[in-house]
Order: sequence, then C-alpha cells, then structure tokens
Amino acid sequence: MLTLYGYWRSSASYRVRIALGLKGVEARHIAVNLREGEQRGDEHLTRNAQGYVPVLELPDGTQLTQSLAIMDFLDASYDVNPFMPRDAVTRSKILSASLTIAADIAPIQNLSVLNYLRREFAADDTQVKDWSAHWISKGFDALEPRVAENKQDFYLSDHPAFFEICLIPQIYNARRFGIDMTRYPALSEVEARCQILPAFKAARPENQPDAF
Amino acid sequence: MLTLYGYWRSSASYRVRIALGLKGVEARHIAVNLREGEQRGDEHLTRNAQGYVPVLELPDGTQLTQSLAIMDFLDASYDVNPFMPRDAVTRSKILSASLTIAADIAPIQNLSVLNYLRREFAADDTQVKDWSAHWISKGFDALEPRVAENKQDFYLSDHPAFFEICLIPQIYNARRFGIDMTRYPALSEVEARCQILPAFKAARPENQPDAF
Repeated sequence: MLTLYGYWRSSASYRVRIALGLKGVEARHIAVNLREGEQRGDEHLTRNAQGYVPVLELPDGTQLTQSLAIMDFLDASYDVNPFMPRDAVTRSKILSASLTIAADIAPIQNLSVLNYLRREFAADDTQVKDWSAHWISKGFDALEPRVAENKQDFYLSDHPAFFEICLIPQIYNARRFGIDMTRYPALSEVEARCQILPAFKAARPENQPDAF
Repeated sequence: MLTLYGYWRSSASYRVRIALGLKGVEARHIAVNLREGEQRGDEHLTRNAQGYVPVLELPDGTQLTQSLAIMDFLDASYDVNPFMPRDAVTRSKILSASLTIAADIAPIQNLSVLNYLRREFAADDTQVKDWSAHWISKGFDALEPRVAENKQDFYLSDHPAFFEICLIPQIYNARRFGIDMTRYPALSEVEARCQILPAFKAARPENQPDAF
C-alpha cells in the first residue's frame, strides 16, 4: 500500500489527497505536524531534505516529493480519470494554469516564507495576511478570464483533472486569507462542480484525522 | 515559425531558450523589457494576463505561457532529445527536482516579489539580496545530495533533460546573488557538462541581442 505523509491544511498535501481519490487508490495517511515543526525533524528530513510535505512512499520504500511530481506519477501509473489530455497544446494550457497556482501563488505563501517575513521584516498578522491575499488575487485575476472563456464543465476537460486538483486547495486557502470568492465566478463554478464529488469531499482538510 | 517573447536575464525565458535549442527548433525572439515595465503594458498583458515572460507563440497565433508548460509542449511535439523518460518513478523524481527550482526557488525571487519587499517592507538592496540568497541556498542544499548520489552524467539521464533546463538558469541567477557555487560540487559538475553544449551556449543571457 502507498503511504502519504502530509498535513491536513497543507494545500500541496490536499492536492495529493484529491489525486489519490480521483485515481481510486488507497493510501495510509501519516500526519506530519507542521505547527509543531515535525517537518524540520530528522525523521522527516530523511524523507524530504526540503522539509516539506507531502511525501508519497511506494511499497518498495521509494519516496516521491513535490505534489505535482506525485500527481504526474499517479497519472502515469493509473489510467482511470486521466489528469492530462493527449493533445500537446491542451496539455500545455492545463499545465500552465496549474503552475500559476502551484508555482506563482502557493510557494510564495508557504509557511517558511511567512515565517521569514515575520522574523526578518517584523511583519505582523495583517501584513502577512495582505501579502498572501496579494499573491492569491494576482494569480486568480489572471486565471478567472481564462477559465470563464472555457466552454467545458472543467478547465479544457470534461472531468476534473490536473488543474482542478490545484485549484480547489488554493480556493480553500484563499478563503483562509479573506479573499472574496464572488470576485471569481468562473473559478467558483468549477469549484462547485468539484466539491460534490466523493474524491474532493474525502480530501477536504476538515475531514482529515489530524485536523483540529 | 515560433515566436518567443522573453527577456535576456529572466531565468524562465532562459529555460525556454535552452529547451528550443535542445529540440533544434528555431524561433523568432522578441524582447519584452522588464526593466522598463513592458511586461505590464497592454500589449504584453494580452499575451499573458499574469504579466510574466516567457510566452511562446505558435504559427496559428496560440500563445503558451509558463516555462515548464512550454517545455512540456516542446517535448510532446518534438521527439529528439526527450526531456522526460518513460519510467513513472524516474519521471516523477526529475520533475520533483525541477519543481524544487521552478516552484520553490524562482517564483520567490521574481521581480514582482522583490518589488513588493522594497515597497511594503522598505527592504534595502542587502535585504533583497539576502532574501534571494536564502531561498536559493535552501533549494540547492536539498538538491546537492540528490544529484551527488546520481551515477549518470546528468540527473537520472544520460543527456541534459527537464532538470538541467531548470538548473542552469538558476545557477546563473545564484551567482548574481552572490552564492558560492563551490558549496555545490555535484550541481556544478552537471553545469560544466551542460555549458560546453551548443544549446546551452546559445541560450546564455549575455548572448542575447537585448542584453546590456
């Protein structure tokens, strides 16, 4: 069986939980408590020298890191519900929209980045919230028209795929930072279509055993 | 013919220049002057609503954004010098190492992020340099042992592939921020093997017409 090392509120862990659900693959979930700094302990650093979650461990002990790389592995290994189409241009567009979230929003508000702002620039709670909200809004402002002009139920797809796996955790995170999602009707419509599906329901942060 | 909108010193543009070279694909290069703010002008925003470079324009006018998504498109479209192997685990590892650079280092030192630090936190030149150096070192510290234990000439590959396309521009950028690369002998060795190849030579920032 696969083992997923993650954290309930980590958006990268959330992505992999959705991906596992869409592929119908069971995994043992082990919590790494980011709030207590377990990610910087020796045990976790042997799994991922970056000290980040998630890590997916295969039955032979191989440990995979980086949520998008784990999603790529799952898609290459399990045919059901393909995360990517075959057409090269459509693939590229889906990957681009996904990276707008996974490269240009999420890493900039990683816990380690926010801690640096507090430590080195004496950022207070309001400044940290404004910082996160700024990068989320900047990314969503660019994504909204792209998704709005799309005629399919999901972004360039008739089923939830690579982009939706990135989008839903980012929207969860956006709400935490006070973003008004009514500004993004097309993104919200895709979200509504996803949230009724079992794979997305099971993956929600509040449904994880380590949630508090 | 393809058209690449880029900037000589943008590491994401540099990735795509290398990728085009490795595939042996010619492109017309059009400079978007980041220093003069051209990326925020209406003309560029119609190409990429995020206001980032690079953008690859196809002969039919389709515009592709996000360097890794463009690399995926090129790899799906041109068979020579594959950027990714077929094995799912090896693919995932190469993609993971690439994302350590393209998601966890580069976006955190994007010009727009550095400008925010200057504007909202009154960061001076030293603080901006320290910030960039911190994230580069954190990423390279994690990558160095992974690449060091690899027995092939390139990371899990016998030819430069997806990871090397990300690594070389990040090393160029690391030197700009004063990182001592002798701390990273394995990464430096891969760099030396790449830099003698024509695709990497042609792609260097100082060899671009808009360099100053």
